[in-house]
Amino acid sequence: MDDNTNTDSVSLRHRTHQIFEIEHHGLARFINSVLMLLIAITVIIVFVETMPQVRSEYTSWFIWFEYFSIALFSIEYIARLWSAAEIDPEQPWRSRWRYAKSPLALIDLLAVAPFYLGLFIQLDTRYLRVVRLLRIFKLTRYSHSLSMLFQVLKNELPGIISALSILIILIVFASAGIYLVEREAQPEVFGSIPQAIWWATITLTTVGYGDVVPITFAGKVLGIVITIMGIGIAALPAGIIASGFTTEMQNRRDEFRAKLMASLSDGKLTHDELRDIERLRISLGLSLKESKALIRLAGTGHITHCPHCGKDISLHP
Amino acid sequence: MDDNTNTDSVSLRHRTHQIFEIEHHGLARFINSVLMLLIAITVIIVFVETMPQVRSEYTSWFIWFEYFSIALFSIEYIARLWSAAEIDPEQPWRSRWRYAKSPLALIDLLAVAPFYLGLFIQLDTRYLRVVRLLRIFKLTRYSHSLSMLFQVLKNELPGIISALSILIILIVFASAGIYLVEREAQPEVFGSIPQAIWWATITLTTVGYGDVVPITFAGKVLGIVITIMGIGIAALPAGIIASGFTTEMQNRRDEFRAKLMASLSDGKLTHDELRDIERLRISLGLSLKESKALIRLAGTGHITHCPHCGKDISLHP
Amino acid sequence: MDDNTNTDSVSLRHRTHQIFEIEHHGLARFINSVLMLLIAITVIIVFVETMPQVRSEYTSWFIWFEYFSIALFSIEYIARLWSAAEIDPEQPWRSRWRYAKSPLALIDLLAVAPFYLGLFIQLDTRYLRVVRLLRIFKLTRYSHSLSMLFQVLKNELPGIISALSILIILIVFASAGIYLVEREAQPEVFGSIPQAIWWATITLTTVGYGDVVPITFAGKVLGIVITIMGIGIAALPAGIIASGFTTEMQNRRDEFRAKLMASLSDGKLTHDELRDIERLRISLGLSLKESKALIRLAGTGHITHCPHCGKDISLHP
Amino acid sequence: MDDNTNTDSVSLRHRTHQIFEIEHHGLARFINSVLMLLIAITVIIVFVETMPQVRSEYTSWFIWFEYFSIALFSIEYIARLWSAAEIDPEQPWRSRWRYAKSPLALIDLLAVAPFYLGLFIQLDTRYLRVVRLLRIFKLTRYSHSLSMLFQVLKNELPGIISALSILIILIVFASAGIYLVEREAQPEVFGSIPQAIWWATITLTTVGYGDVVPITFAGKVLGIVITIMGIGIAALPAGIIASGFTTEMQNRRDEFRAKLMASLSDGKLTHDELRDIERLRISLGLSLKESKALIRLAGTGHITHCPHCGKDISLHP
Repeated sequence: MDDNTNTDSVSLRHRTHQIFEIEHHGLARFINSVLMLLIAITVIIVFVETMPQVRSEYTSWFIWFEYFSIALFSIEYIARLWSAAEIDPEQPWRSRWRYAKSPLALIDLLAVAPFYLGLFIQLDTRYLRVVRLLRIFKLTRYSHSLSMLFQVLKNELPGIISALSILIILIVFASAGIYLVEREAQPEVFGSIPQAIWWATITLTTVGYGDVVPITFAGKVLGIVITIMGIGIAALPAGIIASGFTTEMQNRRDEFRAKLMASLSDGKLTHDELRDIERLRISLGLSLKESKALIRLAGTGHITHCPHCGKDISLHP
Repeated sequence: MDDNTNTDSVSLRHRTHQIFEIEHHGLARFINSVLMLLIAITVIIVFVETMPQVRSEYTSWFIWFEYFSIALFSIEYIARLWSAAEIDPEQPWRSRWRYAKSPLALIDLLAVAPFYLGLFIQLDTRYLRVVRLLRIFKLTRYSHSLSMLFQVLKNELPGIISALSILIILIVFASAGIYLVEREAQPEVFGSIPQAIWWATITLTTVGYGDVVPITFAGKVLGIVITIMGIGIAALPAGIIASGFTTEMQNRRDEFRAKLMASLSDGKLTHDELRDIERLRISLGLSLKESKALIRLAGTGHITHCPHCGKDISLHP
Repeated sequence: MDDNTNTDSVSLRHRTHQIFEIEHHGLARFINSVLMLLIAITVIIVFVETMPQVRSEYTSWFIWFEYFSIALFSIEYIARLWSAAEIDPEQPWRSRWRYAKSPLALIDLLAVAPFYLGLFIQLDTRYLRVVRLLRIFKLTRYSHSLSMLFQVLKNELPGIISALSILIILIVFASAGIYLVEREAQPEVFGSIPQAIWWATITLTTVGYGDVVPITFAGKVLGIVITIMGIGIAALPAGIIASGFTTEMQNRRDEFRAKLMASLSDGKLTHDELRDIERLRISLGLSLKESKALIRLAGTGHITHCPHCGKDISLHP
Repeated sequence: MDDNTNTDSVSLRHRTHQIFEIEHHGLARFINSVLMLLIAITVIIVFVETMPQVRSEYTSWFIWFEYFSIALFSIEYIARLWSAAEIDPEQPWRSRWRYAKSPLALIDLLAVAPFYLGLFIQLDTRYLRVVRLLRIFKLTRYSHSLSMLFQVLKNELPGIISALSILIILIVFASAGIYLVEREAQPEVFGSIPQAIWWATITLTTVGYGDVVPITFAGKVLGIVITIMGIGIAALPAGIIASGFTTEMQNRRDEFRAKLMASLSDGKLTHDELRDIERLRISLGLSLKESKALIRLAGTGHITHCPHCGKDISLHP
């Protein structure tokens, strides 16, 4: 199979690549909708299948649906992998190998692999069924709004890990403390530090089931101190993520303005430049209102506004 | 009924429009207060009506009050709709139709429609009673402070939906996980994944009722992991909304400054301009202190402060 | 008693004013410490007095301590009121009347008034005892760090009220909803909407006692929706307050820089100006590090840094 | 022992100092890994030792491991203290004394001191075991990401203390209030104010165990008010910390830019300067992307970008 000689095959490959990776309307939209629907139905089936009355009645339907989805997901995976050659048509196999190693491709593989693996090896069917839930990650491909969230979480990872370290250290001391003061009053739930971890975690996270509660005076005093610390523990990630979003939004706005100014440097804005700017705006998740305010400057002949923040600078003496 | 020929009718219509949509004092204020009181009493009646001892004793009073409020709300709706012609006196019916489709008018219609519908169709009275609670949304008409909150929530909608997606994905995996490890120990509450969703949601949202709690070692380990994730889940919307408020406040201040500078461009500030600026300040929810600091610049003859942030720039060499 | 003629009295009055309102060391510090200790002991006594075994044994001690604190607080109140004449020595009684109406003076009055009132009118002693807890508000006089917190809460009041309105609307609908779906399964806790308010509030605030929990399928589905909304409800005030702090800190830094630049406008910084700047820094709650970086500019002869943000501007061509 | 004459000893001392305090690879890395592993195993042993079945079986192993870790930690402490002379070789003993008083050295001492103390004085072995958990603080030495978190918490300490004061005042009034309304209905849990503190704290922190719950009408009304206040209480630290992170990140970026501009002032960037900038970037926790954007300016011969924010300023007329 020589990808570069057969023109028809290449042309079909190009079309396939367009549909799966580039376009967002028509046939591409329809295929994506079908795949998303399959994933949603799969999750529902995995869930209701665990109800005995449902399983006994609909098992055969579920099996047929599973064969059907595996078939479609397999075709999707092969089509995406085959058409990945279009990324760099000069090196089709290298492009494919690169694509196959990308997180999105691995998630697609994970969606079908357990089924094929189950044909060769004897796997616990109960766990195999639940493994189908991993297909839910295929949905991340279609979500543009998740990208900023993941970017922020990635940027703030060191802070989040620090907050987690503090939580773990507090759990260690809370467990040891409650063990020392409550072990005699309630040996069945605070009889050892590992047992006490359950209470410490449920309390520090402010979940507070109430299945295990200190009853001694010292235990209640310690409980009060720990619940108050729990508020602080919940505040740390909220503060870190809030700061992360503010920073990321600022960075994105700066990037958009820089690109806009580069297009404006010759004093006018071509139709192509406008389309590029619009694409950037969408990919950065900025509002149309902000974008418009900046573009309006282009019509004034000369720049009378600060190129960085869009504020009027013509008032300066 | 020709709205444009009869002068008296047009004059009354103009007055009605003033009272309901423009003015905020005198008769307008009194009418609004009466309507708000009616809504508050309606909510209280819907609530206490569900108590058997209250219902048996006061039913007739409640029915008379309902007739009375329906009458007033109907008059209000008709008066607003009729006087909406004033928005564009040239096209009275078009103005009314436009108004009738606005969210505020639809809420007003929803407040009275179930009653009139109930005259023609047989409706379940118990649900009909609770539907009266929808009148509470009429109060949003009177709240200026809610507008910024809704603006921020609208701006940050993609982020909030992303956070919700992550929460749902975590609920899916937490439910499946706890089902796998706890189904044999507690088949009555973790016997199927749909049953386990209850525990997963109550835990991830840190509500923690404690009616369902893992008891096995593996279940408790999973519970600890999930409660810790719950802190992160609560942090996401807090972070998104905090960043949204910071951004929205910045945008509003920039808008106010831009308008102020436009008025200042001729070196002086007329009384009309001052009134416009004051209106803008109120609608943007900025503090009087900040506004005053910026307006003070107008008296200096020439601008000695940075037009962007109002800081003194005359110190520069 | 003519305040302006007797020199000794005026001199003593001046000294009293200094000790109570101006100074923060020596005798002033000692008096403040004694008063704070009295308040702390009062709170502890109010608390332990409600324990029958403590009350029966120490009642006489508690009564004597109460007489002693009332005496000291009364002297404090009279001394502050009398020396308030120093605020404007020309109009001693007007200064006192103004002071008497200030929140701090009213709190001081509230600390002793119930005792004197109890001498004339027959009051419920149990409530009278708890009223002594109001003395805790006297402590706000000594806390500088609370001022910024209160400032932010005051600035963000409209937003906080909006968030509260949304919470109340959600409680109204959650109560009505759970009443409709759970009233037949659990009539004893969801038998009327007012009863259902308890569950709705405990759930939306993510407290989750677990004393009342939905048991029907529809009730659990509604419960899941409401707990998820609860996360959003908790995120609103966190976001509003975070944004408020960021804004307030920015405003305070701008104010400090403006004052510093005014002192720097003649090219040097006198000792008096430095002391004024240091006072402003403390009152604004800025860090010494930031203040120092800005003051260092004064020594360079000419300003080579942006006066607003302290960044080097000498690199510009 | 004269530290300055024996060349071999000084050379070894220099090498020891390098390994323990300066280097981050090779032998230094190996030693740090071993010490971290020892701490982790110690925590696990302290935890599982409290389980009777584990203690009876592995006691001798645990004792031997304890002797082994004490030996290594002692050697580490002595080596660090001895080589601290390298900080200022002119004043070896003064350098050591200064180091011995540093928080990190005190934590190291605390890790071994209880063991040696136990040799001379009779200590409660159960508490002595748990004291070994303090060794977990030795891990803070190795965490760079915790530094920013601690810096923010330190900066925002006044705000956090204020939030804590408000929480304590609310607990005081909530306890007194619930005592007044519930003491007759539930004397066993609300019979005195000190008892009521438990419920007030668990409710205001939104933990909500549900072991103590108001049952009277007045108690539930008060409970609703207090749970709603609980949301605000949780929002305060989240808001304070979010604002603190935003401010700290801004300060660190400003510091990095100032240093970068100082290096750029002669128009070029030497290799040494680049290395210094990279070190600063890591110590400030900034991203490589941001650093690169700023450094790129150095190659342009003359500065065409704003030195403060790295944005292109050559577009200005």
